[in-house]
Amino acid sequence: MSKVIAVNAGSSSLKFTIYEVTSEDEVSSGLVDRIGLNDSNVVIKYGDGEKFETVTDVKNHEEAINILLEQLIELNIIESYDEISGTGHRIVAGGEIFKDSALLDEEGIKQVEALSDFAPLHNGPEAQGIRAFQKVLPGKPTVGVFDTSFHTTMPEKAYLYSVPMEYYEKHGARRYGAHGTSHRYVANRAAELMGKDIADLKIITCHLGNGGSITAVDGGKSVDTSMGFTPLAGITMGTRSGDIDASLVSYIMEKEGISDIKDMIDILNNKSGLLGLSGVSSDMRDVEAAAAEGNENAQAALEVFYDRVQKYIGSYIAVMGGVDAIVFTAGIGENSPATRAAIINDQMDWFGIDLDADKNDTRDEAEISADDSRVKVFTIPTDEELMIVRDTVRLANITE
Amino acid sequence: MSKVIAVNAGSSSLKFTIYEVTSEDEVSSGLVDRIGLNDSNVVIKYGDGEKFETVTDVKNHEEAINILLEQLIELNIIESYDEISGTGHRIVAGGEIFKDSALLDEEGIKQVEALSDFAPLHNGPEAQGIRAFQKVLPGKPTVGVFDTSFHTTMPEKAYLYSVPMEYYEKHGARRYGAHGTSHRYVANRAAELMGKDIADLKIITCHLGNGGSITAVDGGKSVDTSMGFTPLAGITMGTRSGDIDASLVSYIMEKEGISDIKDMIDILNNKSGLLGLSGVSSDMRDVEAAAAEGNENAQAALEVFYDRVQKYIGSYIAVMGGVDAIVFTAGIGENSPATRAAIINDQMDWFGIDLDADKNDTRDEAEISADDSRVKVFTIPTDEELMIVRDTVRLANITE
Repeated sequence: MSKVIAVNAGSSSLKFTIYEVTSEDEVSSGLVDRIGLNDSNVVIKYGDGEKFETVTDVKNHEEAINILLEQLIELNIIESYDEISGTGHRIVAGGEIFKDSALLDEEGIKQVEALSDFAPLHNGPEAQGIRAFQKVLPGKPTVGVFDTSFHTTMPEKAYLYSVPMEYYEKHGARRYGAHGTSHRYVANRAAELMGKDIADLKIITCHLGNGGSITAVDGGKSVDTSMGFTPLAGITMGTRSGDIDASLVSYIMEKEGISDIKDMIDILNNKSGLLGLSGVSSDMRDVEAAAAEGNENAQAALEVFYDRVQKYIGSYIAVMGGVDAIVFTAGIGENSPATRAAIINDQMDWFGIDLDADKNDTRDEAEISADDSRVKVFTIPTDEELMIVRDTVRLANITE
Repeated sequence: MSKVIAVNAGSSSLKFTIYEVTSEDEVSSGLVDRIGLNDSNVVIKYGDGEKFETVTDVKNHEEAINILLEQLIELNIIESYDEISGTGHRIVAGGEIFKDSALLDEEGIKQVEALSDFAPLHNGPEAQGIRAFQKVLPGKPTVGVFDTSFHTTMPEKAYLYSVPMEYYEKHGARRYGAHGTSHRYVANRAAELMGKDIADLKIITCHLGNGGSITAVDGGKSVDTSMGFTPLAGITMGTRSGDIDASLVSYIMEKEGISDIKDMIDILNNKSGLLGLSGVSSDMRDVEAAAAEGNENAQAALEVFYDRVQKYIGSYIAVMGGVDAIVFTAGIGENSPATRAAIINDQMDWFGIDLDADKNDTRDEAEISADDSRVKVFTIPTDEELMIVRDTVRLANITE
């Protein structure tokens, strides 16, 4: 039975999911963390809720992969490496080069590395993960699946910033967006659920997790998205500020005596958002709980969060000249009916967007709009790994 | 006949308009520029298209005002200073202190100066202008009319950025907005033209000049606006970038070898926007002309400009849960039917917002929406000076 491994490699971690190609069944998933440090956790889930766990020292990605593959055999998850038909790798930045997922040869891997400028913390380790798999599993096709590819269909008016054009031409300073694989998956799934051709639909996808982004999907193509040159921009996130007045960067640096702009950008990425406003947590559940107990800053954080998402929804209706469906996904989007209800509230009536409170009380895939809502609203658990596997199967011509 | 002078003082300039209080007729206007430099131009318009012009050295604001007042008598515009019942001064930053225009005593002027942090190039010179008038015309009431006051009704969710709350609490880092006097004037005028109480209306006002901002006016109150902590944020402007990913600040500094963040913010304020994208001009007319001749960057600048305004319109419909009227004003908003048509285009059909092409072919105050448009669209020449005069009359209790 042919299998594909979907891989998400970080600088000191490696997450994987193994799918059976024909059935698209998930046969195993897991992770190795603290790679290069001591006491790595190795976790492999498989079978009917079974779980293998061990703690060991793992000095690099290659060793992590060797340990994983040995255990896959040991645990009878696969019988031989021949069953693995290819690996698909999540890559954050594809720049303007990768307009689709791509079969990666040595040149392709070098291009991934060259794009590190746009994702300093991600592209390097991701390329490292690819090289390690190629060493351990030589000859197996490798596919890169880029967070940005889905957004390469954005028109110029959406991706250009109003800064000197040479910054775009010389340095690639433009909107790239992120979460493309998730937006692509849930938009297509919404079209399936509606029984319509996605080419005929205008869909707004709200990926609300610790990171979050909103995308306008017109005819199946991303035409605008809230994340920008980096994932800092857009809506309020767990720890990221989203959109701010750029003047604040210099103002706060001056007032707080911050001399290195990298430290300031770090604050905007890691100490802002829900965490910064609430002072409580970056986790929506904690912020909701604190607000419920009367914490005013937590309440303010929630209201700012809802407001930003609502504004993007409104702006993307304007961008597409309408909307047929709104989709919620990712950690918050899938699991917080309260958040969905606060976003699709009375303010959305004018657009003809109405929730059904009972249908909204779910964490599963569901249509949650009122029967007479002009616009359908869905909650759809995202499945980026499945998209990675499908792209790997498609691009590596994996047949059985 | 009682008169009020509306004053707009810059660091090296002083503009004024004199209104007759009862009739609200403009009796004179003009300016002194290059104050503190050599060869200041003194220009006074009056009567039936008459104009006084001279070039002389003016060493400070006080001297500028003395020259002006002498000429007002000389030219028979006023017979004596007794006719001047008060002066109203445009002030950019009112912070959270000035929630309305205010009669300014010494303490008030000091507060204006203390707010210079929020408008380094403006509040200082404006306070200087006030002091000069008080010296030359002692005992006349002085009213400050703040660009920000109209926006002090914004709810917390609109004015808070998703940054650590202490930056707001300690340093006042929040959205203040600008152009408040203009947004207030055209919103109220739109309600008059509709024959309705503004308390019952949701209005989106588009102040599109060299600087530009969009405001959501719900029940006569600003509930959100596109300019932010400073006028840098929001839509694409003549030379300002509007909203960008804050990460770009550090990225471009690194790529371009810019070491001082103030230089970078200066580029975003003065070399970006229509100018930066088009490479042609900050003036919409020049950019339109270049685009018409096939300049692709000019065309891109136009499309980005329209896109940003459309997105704010959509987002503010979401904020207010509807819209009854959209108003265009200021240089571009009043004088470019092409811009209005490009913004209120087919994308707005879904909202039920439709222009009438014939009615739109105007530079005068007019309703320009199609008869069956669900939302009224207006073009309304702004009149900030009249608002300054009205506020001065109201707050100084000027009766005749």
